[in-house]
Amino acid sequence: MNLRLVRPEDYYEISRLINDWWGGRKMSDMLPKLFFDHFNDTSYIVEKDEVIIGFLIGFVSQTKPNEAYIHFVGVHPEYRKNQVGKKLYHTFFENVKRRSVKIVRAVTSPVNKTSIAYHTRMGFEVEQGDRTADGVSVFSNYDGLGQDRVLFLKIL
Amino acid sequence: MNLRLVRPEDYYEISRLINDWWGGRKMSDMLPKLFFDHFNDTSYIVEKDEVIIGFLIGFVSQTKPNEAYIHFVGVHPEYRKNQVGKKLYHTFFENVKRRSVKIVRAVTSPVNKTSIAYHTRMGFEVEQGDRTADGVSVFSNYDGLGQDRVLFLKIL
Repeated sequence: MNLRLVRPEDYYEISRLINDWWGGRKMSDMLPKLFFDHFNDTSYIVEKDEVIIGFLIGFVSQTKPNEAYIHFVGVHPEYRKNQVGKKLYHTFFENVKRRSVKIVRAVTSPVNKTSIAYHTRMGFEVEQGDRTADGVSVFSNYDGLGQDRVLFLKIL
Repeated sequence: MNLRLVRPEDYYEISRLINDWWGGRKMSDMLPKLFFDHFNDTSYIVEKDEVIIGFLIGFVSQTKPNEAYIHFVGVHPEYRKNQVGKKLYHTFFENVKRRSVKIVRAVTSPVNKTSIAYHTRMGFEVEQGDRTADGVSVFSNYDGLGQDRVLFLKIL
């Protein structure tokens, strides 16, 4: 496995992949090209035999320079027990730590139990929201009406 | 008219507005909450009588700190001859200039003739792409298969 920084041209391959990896859901709207052009110095790819098997897109908050935000993480379904995610997260943490970041944030949907469990294993805490849904604290309507979200925070 | 920096809570009002202003097209997927949380120190709103009539969401490139990118601009259809856009662009230019930015970039669709004309009036040049469509130079498949784009650049 080879881990490297994202390059602008990876956008095309990743756009195609994420629609596959998420079982046909149209995820690529969430990941416009700008992330590959303007935040590629804190975003990573894992390749095996020159095929992308995982990626993490994140950045340092411009408004709050001691915070970083992980926007999107994807791992190839066949490589989900291979520590690909762990490698991506830890490399990101080390990178942003060198940029004086103290807090890393991430957001997920309350229905995404796999993501909630995964973030917990990666050392994230769930932020206290305004209500509890399915045993997890959520921020109601965080991403618009009816779009509750779970907010994660990790102190580096 | 009052111009001010965007605040995180403006997200909810703007998400609602853009679907209206773009004549029912689902534009809000392109503008996730993260821009209101992490790039609100280079993003602006124009209000009239406490109602939002325009906004500009932009940021300084993390990878290329001497470049800025304008992600999304919207003006209320009834206020399109009132220099709202001009005020937003010029305030953004002044802001990023103070942050040592030399180049501002923006992207639009070749079908969006209004946007192309507008950017030209704002002093943007069209970047040389790989082919010409409807008299304008475009980058083929820039945002994915079949998604040609016009790339703009302005030297500050």
